[in-house]
Amino acid sequence: MNEVIINEVGPRDGLQSQQVILPPEQRIDLINALFAAGLTNIEVGSFVSPTAVPQMAGTDAVARGISVPVGANVSALIPNRKGYELARRSGVDTVAVVVSATETMNEKNIRMSLAQVMDVAEDIIARGSQEGAKVQAYLAVAFECPFEGKVDPTRVYELGGRLLEAGARELVIADTIGAADPKQVRSLMEWLVGAHGASRLACHFHDTRAMGLANVYAALESGVRRFDAAIGGLGGCPFAPGAKGNVATEDVVMMCEQLGYRTGINLDDLLPIVEAVSEVLGAKVGGRAFSWLKQRAA
Amino acid sequence: MNEVIINEVGPRDGLQSQQVILPPEQRIDLINALFAAGLTNIEVGSFVSPTAVPQMAGTDAVARGISVPVGANVSALIPNRKGYELARRSGVDTVAVVVSATETMNEKNIRMSLAQVMDVAEDIIARGSQEGAKVQAYLAVAFECPFEGKVDPTRVYELGGRLLEAGARELVIADTIGAADPKQVRSLMEWLVGAHGASRLACHFHDTRAMGLANVYAALESGVRRFDAAIGGLGGCPFAPGAKGNVATEDVVMMCEQLGYRTGINLDDLLPIVEAVSEVLGAKVGGRAFSWLKQRAA
Repeated sequence: MNEVIINEVGPRDGLQSQQVILPPEQRIDLINALFAAGLTNIEVGSFVSPTAVPQMAGTDAVARGISVPVGANVSALIPNRKGYELARRSGVDTVAVVVSATETMNEKNIRMSLAQVMDVAEDIIARGSQEGAKVQAYLAVAFECPFEGKVDPTRVYELGGRLLEAGARELVIADTIGAADPKQVRSLMEWLVGAHGASRLACHFHDTRAMGLANVYAALESGVRRFDAAIGGLGGCPFAPGAKGNVATEDVVMMCEQLGYRTGINLDDLLPIVEAVSEVLGAKVGGRAFSWLKQRAA
Repeated sequence: MNEVIINEVGPRDGLQSQQVILPPEQRIDLINALFAAGLTNIEVGSFVSPTAVPQMAGTDAVARGISVPVGANVSALIPNRKGYELARRSGVDTVAVVVSATETMNEKNIRMSLAQVMDVAEDIIARGSQEGAKVQAYLAVAFECPFEGKVDPTRVYELGGRLLEAGARELVIADTIGAADPKQVRSLMEWLVGAHGASRLACHFHDTRAMGLANVYAALESGVRRFDAAIGGLGGCPFAPGAKGNVATEDVVMMCEQLGYRTGINLDDLLPIVEAVSEVLGAKVGGRAFSWLKQRAA
């Protein structure tokens, strides 16, 4: 498998943490530009309470307003059954459900126990299967939890297996706080790939400790070929030092292409998008290799 | 082997490219602080023309002025036989000779052919063996040359083998411009480790394309346990975007420790040194993970 699929999560995981709230029209422009650069998988928003997450208000209008290329896959994050209904009505192809791997994280995130969150996820996966909606299952804090510390890989393996057996199209192993190192990634992902094959597995890395690209490489070595990434490394707060952003789409594309994988994404087209995002957010964003990429493109 | 040896090159490779020139006293303070943080291998300067590289003027005074802990190893870069004499007289333990892997790079760097540079290196290695001086041989632009492009690994393997057979204590494979990716690193270093064992091999990475830590990880996976790094990621120009610094000592220590290797270096002691360097240079330096490390230490 010489192809890497990048799922752009900037419009959701990236923008939801920003102080500047972008109206649907600006998010539509961003998503259309990302499609034009060759992205074929984009998470366009989430169907959550606009009171809780005002950055994601109008995801319905975003989903309806974008120009989706033939064959592209549009996803949205949903927290529960109501979100599932809203997402279905908006016409997105894929819904993403999130289960945190620890009790405390589920409690803090959504005020439910792990068992309850698993129930909701399995129920949504079952409904998706019946109704022809693809369901992507995220396993959050899969390496380390900010409340419970290191997460036992056996627990991740077991929860992930249940989500896949329930019928999730894809299991996304998420290093939500950016704490994983490449050895942990390789060991867990090899185990999961061995059990389930690579085609239904993906990784989601944050770059808090600067090991984001090392973790992508380690996952590639384990056979993983699907990665979340956010344009410009969005995801933390760009106004604060120590921003805890996702791995940047432009960095991941650069590395994958240099490693010999095809992404189908035009790196040079990504750079002006990064700059446009900086402009609308009023703060400089950009992946770790952005200045070098700019220099090379000049 | 659960131990990683980090060779601090900030006082040489880091400072030589700075606009601000630090007098010997400030370099002595920096090196003494690095020793106090647990570094045991430090490249303290180079014996080159002070007209060509004014940043390294007074390396002799630096070498004589520092307080070297018992068992520590002090090295200096030398370009030729004259440099060898000066280094020996200054009392450093180890001299570093540099051979670039391509014709053009040697011409541009030192106005000699590759064959001539190899002759000088082999001669210095032989003298070192006779006179009890350790010689460390750098193979520069070992992955990509700014003038000739990608470098054939067979050439690196052959040149490196000759330097080791001549009696170099250590062969340092240097990605001088920060162009390597982890697959290239793994493939080359596995080949070299297979042929020569890991104990006489080291890697020197620059972080231009943000793959520095991924490359360190790939080299670790190949069995390499010795790495160059520069405090604060010094090495490019901190005043310019796209700075092409070395991998930062604090980042490499952080990752190695998390991966379960012992470095003997106290990470918390490195952070104030990074800040002191920022202060004397009048420009913010710091590795990719610096803001997170600061946050964690707070």
